[in-house]
Amino acid sequence: MSLAKRCIAESFGTFWLVFGGCGSAVLAAAFPNVGIGLLGVAFAFGLTVLTMAYAIGHISGCHLNPAVTVGLVVGKRFPAKEILPYVVAQVVGAVCGAAVLYVIASGKAGFDVHAGFASNGYGEHSPGGYSLVSALVAEIVLTFFFLFVILGATDERAPKGFAPIAIGLCLTLIHLVGIPVTNLSVNPARSTGPALFAGGIALSQLWLFWIAPIIGAALAGIAYPAICKSSEEQR
Amino acid sequence: MSLAKRCIAESFGTFWLVFGGCGSAVLAAAFPNVGIGLLGVAFAFGLTVLTMAYAIGHISGCHLNPAVTVGLVVGKRFPAKEILPYVVAQVVGAVCGAAVLYVIASGKAGFDVHAGFASNGYGEHSPGGYSLVSALVAEIVLTFFFLFVILGATDERAPKGFAPIAIGLCLTLIHLVGIPVTNLSVNPARSTGPALFAGGIALSQLWLFWIAPIIGAALAGIAYPAICKSSEEQR
Amino acid sequence: MSLAKRCIAESFGTFWLVFGGCGSAVLAAAFPNVGIGLLGVAFAFGLTVLTMAYAIGHISGCHLNPAVTVGLVVGKRFPAKEILPYVVAQVVGAVCGAAVLYVIASGKAGFDVHAGFASNGYGEHSPGGYSLVSALVAEIVLTFFFLFVILGATDERAPKGFAPIAIGLCLTLIHLVGIPVTNLSVNPARSTGPALFAGGIALSQLWLFWIAPIIGAALAGIAYPAICKSSEEQR
Amino acid sequence: MSLAKRCIAESFGTFWLVFGGCGSAVLAAAFPNVGIGLLGVAFAFGLTVLTMAYAIGHISGCHLNPAVTVGLVVGKRFPAKEILPYVVAQVVGAVCGAAVLYVIASGKAGFDVHAGFASNGYGEHSPGGYSLVSALVAEIVLTFFFLFVILGATDERAPKGFAPIAIGLCLTLIHLVGIPVTNLSVNPARSTGPALFAGGIALSQLWLFWIAPIIGAALAGIAYPAICKSSEEQR
Repeated sequence: MSLAKRCIAESFGTFWLVFGGCGSAVLAAAFPNVGIGLLGVAFAFGLTVLTMAYAIGHISGCHLNPAVTVGLVVGKRFPAKEILPYVVAQVVGAVCGAAVLYVIASGKAGFDVHAGFASNGYGEHSPGGYSLVSALVAEIVLTFFFLFVILGATDERAPKGFAPIAIGLCLTLIHLVGIPVTNLSVNPARSTGPALFAGGIALSQLWLFWIAPIIGAALAGIAYPAICKSSEEQR
Repeated sequence: MSLAKRCIAESFGTFWLVFGGCGSAVLAAAFPNVGIGLLGVAFAFGLTVLTMAYAIGHISGCHLNPAVTVGLVVGKRFPAKEILPYVVAQVVGAVCGAAVLYVIASGKAGFDVHAGFASNGYGEHSPGGYSLVSALVAEIVLTFFFLFVILGATDERAPKGFAPIAIGLCLTLIHLVGIPVTNLSVNPARSTGPALFAGGIALSQLWLFWIAPIIGAALAGIAYPAICKSSEEQR
Repeated sequence: MSLAKRCIAESFGTFWLVFGGCGSAVLAAAFPNVGIGLLGVAFAFGLTVLTMAYAIGHISGCHLNPAVTVGLVVGKRFPAKEILPYVVAQVVGAVCGAAVLYVIASGKAGFDVHAGFASNGYGEHSPGGYSLVSALVAEIVLTFFFLFVILGATDERAPKGFAPIAIGLCLTLIHLVGIPVTNLSVNPARSTGPALFAGGIALSQLWLFWIAPIIGAALAGIAYPAICKSSEEQR
Repeated sequence: MSLAKRCIAESFGTFWLVFGGCGSAVLAAAFPNVGIGLLGVAFAFGLTVLTMAYAIGHISGCHLNPAVTVGLVVGKRFPAKEILPYVVAQVVGAVCGAAVLYVIASGKAGFDVHAGFASNGYGEHSPGGYSLVSALVAEIVLTFFFLFVILGATDERAPKGFAPIAIGLCLTLIHLVGIPVTNLSVNPARSTGPALFAGGIALSQLWLFWIAPIIGAALAGIAYPAICKSSEEQR
C-alpha cells in the first residue's frame, strides 16, 4: 500500500478511537441510572482498537497513536522516516473525531464543552484529584506495558490473528486502572483532539500527554527486544 | 445454499438480534439495584451478532440488517438482485422477534408497550434528549464505521475466523456511544420491529432509521475499497 | 475416550457451571455499592462454558446441560444411547457444585439458603414477577437459539476453534435477556442443583425447567439441519 | 530462551498482574457514581493474564503465579527444578507492581494504604465477612478449576492459540465469584505484593493465600491427567 493510503487509514482509525472512546465518555458514562460508567468507557476505548485492528491492520498496521508509532520504531518494527506522516494523520483523525462528537453532543440542551469533553488532566483536572507525579508515573508505566503487549502479541512466535484481541483488550485494561488518575491517555493524538475543544486547563496540561506516553513507549521498544533477543531478526 | 434457505437464516438471525438486544433493554436494563444498564444492553446487541455470525455466517453471510446488505452491495461484496429478498427476510424476522418479546414482557403486571419498547427516536423521543441533527449525524457516522469494520474484517487479507468477534463487538461499541442519542439503531429492521408495537412517535420517526443507516452504509461501501484498492478484486 | 472418563469430565464441567454461575449470583451480585449485578452474573455463566469448552471440549464435547445433550441427539450430532449417562453425570456435577457453594455461602453470618440460592422460578418466584406463560416462552425460545448457535458454531463449515467463544458468550447473552423472567435456566441440571438446597417453591416449580429447555433444544435440533441441509452429512 | 530471560519475563508479567488488577481495585472500583465495581476489577485481573499470555506466552509460558507453576509441575508440564527461580521472579514482580501502584495511589489526598490496598483476607478482613473455612474452600476450589482450565486449554488436542482467552477469562470468572469472600487470590505472589504494603492483618493472614492456592493447583495437576490419560504423553 502507498504511504498516502496507509495514512488515510490511520486517520480513519484514530477518528474512530476518539469518536468512539471519548464519545462513550461524553454521551453515555454518566447517563442517569443506567449509565455505562468507567467500565463501559474502558470497553469502548478497547473496542475501537480491537475493531480497527481487524479492519485496517492489514493496511496500515493500525497504530492510531503517536506513542505506538514511536515505540514500534524504537523496537525496530517500523521505519523511522514514516513517523511524521503517521503522526500527522493520527492527529488529524483525532481532531476530526472530536469535532464530529462535538456536533452530536451539542445537540442536547445544557451541553458544556468546557466541562471536560473527555480531555486528559492531572492535579485539579484529574478526575480523582491525582497529582502531577501520579499522572506522569501512571502514563509512563501504562504506555510501557501497552507497547510491551503490542510488541509481544505481534511477535512472530505469538499465535497468529489474535493480536487485535490482545491489544484492544489491553487498552480496556489500561483504562480500568487509569481513568481516575488522568482520564487516561497513553495516546497523544487522543489527548489532543478533545483538548482543542475543551480549551483552558486541558490545553495547558496537554504537554504531559505527549511526553509521558512517548517515554513509556520508547522504553518498551528497548525492553521487549532485550528480553527476547531472538525476535530481533524477525523484521 | 438456495436463496430461500439463506433468507430463512437471515430471518432467524434478525429475530435473534431484536429479541436478544431489545429484550435485554426491555426486561433487564433498569431492573432494580442489579439491572444491566446500557452497558449490558450494548453487550447484548453485540453478542446477538457475534453468536449468529458463527452460527449462520457460512449459510447466509449473517447480515441481519438492511443497511449491511446495502453497504455490501455498494462495496461489491453482495449481488444487488438479492437486496429485496434479504431485506424482506430481515424485517419479517425483526417483527417476529419483537412479537415474541411482547408476549414475554406483557406477562408482568404493569407492562406498557407504549412506554417505548426499545424503539428508536430523536428529539422528545431521544433517551437523552438529543436533536434531530444529532440523531442523523450519529446514525450516519456509526453505521459508516460499522460497515467499514465489516468490510475490513472480512477482507481477504484480514485474519480468518475473527470477523464475527470484530463485527459483534463493533456493534457493542456503537451502542456504548449512541444509546443516549437515539436508543441506537444502525439497522432499519431492528428499528421497525419494536416501532410497530410501540406505535405513535416511534412510528412517525421511523423514516430516519431507514435513511440514515443506509446512507452511512453506502458511504462506507464506497470509502473502504477506495482506501485499499487491492481488495477490490477479491470477490 | 471411554464413556466413564467423558462422564467424569461432564461432571466436573457442570460443577463449574453451577458453582461459578450460581456462585457469582449468590456471593457477588448484590454486594453493597460495587456488586457485579445481573451483568456480572451473565458473564459468569457464559465464562463457565467458554472456559470449560476449551478445557474439556476435546474430551466430552462439553455439553454440561441435559438440554444440550438432547438437542445434539435430535440434530444427529450425538448418539442417543449415551443420553442417560451424560445427563446423570451432569446432574451429579450440578448438585455437587451447589453443595460446595452452600458450604462457602453459609460461612457468612445471616446467610439464608431459602431466600433463593440462585434457583429458577416463575410467578411469585420470578425475580421480576413474570407469569408462567412468560417463563415457558422465554425458556423455550432462549434454549432454541442456544442450541441453534451450538449447532451452527460447531458446523463443519464454521471457523475452527471459535465455537467455545460463540457458545459461551451466547449463554451470557441469554442471561442478559432472561434473568428477570426466570432467573434463567436453559439447563435442567443447573436448575436442579440449587433447587435441592433452596427447597419449597424452587422444587415445586422445577418441572418447568426440565420441560421447557428440552422442548426448545429438540426444536433447534430439527430446525438447524432443515435450514442448512448440507450439514446433515457431516457426522 | 535462557532461564534468566524467562524469569525476567515472569517478573514483568506478574508486575502487570498486580499493578493492573490491584490497581483497578484501589484506584477505580469505588470511584463515585461511575466506578467500575467488582465486575471491572474482575475484568482487569483477567485481562492482565490474557494480554500477557499473548505477549510472553512464547517466552516463559506466562505463569505469573506460584500456584500455576506448582500445578504445571505436578501435571508434568514444567520441570520441577525451575520452580524456585520462577517463584522468586514472580514474587519480585508482584512486590514491584505493588510499589509502583503505591506511588501513584499516594498522589491523592487522603489515601490510606492500611485501608486494605487490595490485599486478601478472611474473617474480619474478608470483604463480605466470610469465615476462614469459606476462604479456604473458595481458594482451593477456585484454584483447582483455574489449573484444570489451564491444563485443558493448553492440551495438545485443544484449539491452538485460544488458551490465553480461556485462561484470562477464567481468572475474570473466578473473581466474579470470589472477591466478596477473600478479595480473591488464587495466586500467592499477587497476595504477597499488596500485603507487604498494607501490613497488619493482611500480613498475618498471608499464609492462607500461599497454602490454599498451591493445594488446589496440585490437586488439579493430579486430576486433569487422570481424567484424560492420552494427554500424559504429550510432553
